[in-house]
Amino acid sequence: MSTLVLGTVALDTVKTPFGLRKQILGGSAVHFAMSARLFVPVNLVAIVGKDFPQQYIDFLNRKGVILTSLIRAEGKTFKWQGEYKEDMEVAYTLNTELGVLTGFRPCLTEQQKKMEYIFLANIDPELQQHLLNHLYSPRMVALDSMNYWIEHKRKVLMRLLRDVDIYVANEEEARALSGELHLVKAAKRLRSLGPKMILIKRGQHGVLFYSDNFIFSIPAYPTEKIVDPTGAGDTFAGGFMGYLASKRRMDKIDLKRAVVYGAIAASFNVEDFGVNRTAKLTLKDLNDRLFKFKECVLF
Amino acid sequence: MSTLVLGTVALDTVKTPFGLRKQILGGSAVHFAMSARLFVPVNLVAIVGKDFPQQYIDFLNRKGVILTSLIRAEGKTFKWQGEYKEDMEVAYTLNTELGVLTGFRPCLTEQQKKMEYIFLANIDPELQQHLLNHLYSPRMVALDSMNYWIEHKRKVLMRLLRDVDIYVANEEEARALSGELHLVKAAKRLRSLGPKMILIKRGQHGVLFYSDNFIFSIPAYPTEKIVDPTGAGDTFAGGFMGYLASKRRMDKIDLKRAVVYGAIAASFNVEDFGVNRTAKLTLKDLNDRLFKFKECVLF
Repeated sequence: MSTLVLGTVALDTVKTPFGLRKQILGGSAVHFAMSARLFVPVNLVAIVGKDFPQQYIDFLNRKGVILTSLIRAEGKTFKWQGEYKEDMEVAYTLNTELGVLTGFRPCLTEQQKKMEYIFLANIDPELQQHLLNHLYSPRMVALDSMNYWIEHKRKVLMRLLRDVDIYVANEEEARALSGELHLVKAAKRLRSLGPKMILIKRGQHGVLFYSDNFIFSIPAYPTEKIVDPTGAGDTFAGGFMGYLASKRRMDKIDLKRAVVYGAIAASFNVEDFGVNRTAKLTLKDLNDRLFKFKECVLF
Repeated sequence: MSTLVLGTVALDTVKTPFGLRKQILGGSAVHFAMSARLFVPVNLVAIVGKDFPQQYIDFLNRKGVILTSLIRAEGKTFKWQGEYKEDMEVAYTLNTELGVLTGFRPCLTEQQKKMEYIFLANIDPELQQHLLNHLYSPRMVALDSMNYWIEHKRKVLMRLLRDVDIYVANEEEARALSGELHLVKAAKRLRSLGPKMILIKRGQHGVLFYSDNFIFSIPAYPTEKIVDPTGAGDTFAGGFMGYLASKRRMDKIDLKRAVVYGAIAASFNVEDFGVNRTAKLTLKDLNDRLFKFKECVLF
């Protein structure tokens, strides 16, 4: 079983208290792929410009990411510039250049249209809907978004929510879309908008999973090393979806385990800039840390 | 085995989005007692004024709290007035009247001086040191404080930290005293100041326990009902200390279990104003919710 992700491939310029990195490989689809690939093959649906370095294409190929539906278009690659202050919790966006993203129209192969485990990473909800319309028999569709779309394309997003199985959001997004400050209430409200499962990513506070059947809450892995949190949420989603796609089951135990794998993958992501750490990640690394995590959270 | 708590008995005026309550029973020692009493007898060392309602004395007596060292002095009882906004995370202090607290000098009976499980709840660190000096053979001393003392009596507090086993703090206090923003780093730094164990209360984000041997992190019980968070931290400490005092052991399993009992007790505290909910709490309630909590956090 493989998975398909629609999202961005970006050149990120990131400043954190640990340094500055210019135009490094980033984007929601890339971060997702770095952890999902540990479990299943990942089909990446995205667009880059002619300025996108060949070395990054080679890198993604080496990592086994399937690039059949990565479009290389005339124009500039999507660029994001951001900064994290001492608390490392909030990303302050300094600049965004959409570039080729503005003319992006996702295009799938016949084989990809048959895929079952789909992650609609943060991107214009109209593109997410477009892709969803072309799938033959999705088994599990997870949707991520961001405050910009919640504010500017709320209607499209609300429509889309009715068609997905899982809504993945950070605390701020969950509150903005639900209108509830309290996270459990927010999750409940989001559930009523359509998705059977709600995943709230809480950064250094862990993850909250909500469904009609059960609530599951875990703290973050208590790491001391946080160098760059960019992409942690997508890395989480990659671990979560990758694990479920590899199991082809979704009972309570699998879902809980998927959440934990996602959280562990994210804990590696933050340890270095961009995909530096997750590029080197192995399933053994994940399992070793899972063992340590259990020590820290089980009783 | 019984426990002894030094702290405040207060008349709290609390406003939250769920209502306003005037001069209700509160204070760090009272909230601690409400959960610790479920495990062991609690000796309360505190002071109230002549205005302190007899009905509250009767109430504490009915709950089995030992009031031998509760002084009733000429003057007014300590009063705190605070407000919580929609997020229910931060208590905004509107007014504080110290009253008889200013002249308080804790006084123990001979029997109390022999006590082994001690909680120095938030109060002037000089009083905490004074009490500590009068104990014959404390087995476990936990210390709580607040930003006011960290700022104004740092030296006394630093001295005191070298003599206690556990330092209990909320996130803000842990960061202020350690100078570290990252919580695991903060805990590590606090450990270096003396206490073998550090407990960081994270409100709706759970609890972090740090020691040289292990780290333990749990999310909060995912309750929807938060009516008044006042005293949640002391209720947590009461569950934690009460459980340990009842076990008279402090291995890893006991410590983890104590943290969980504390967190569960705190989750009840926030469900109603003051001690309304914890006054009715039974060990069965705690164990029932512990069972549900396991469902939500174990995997």
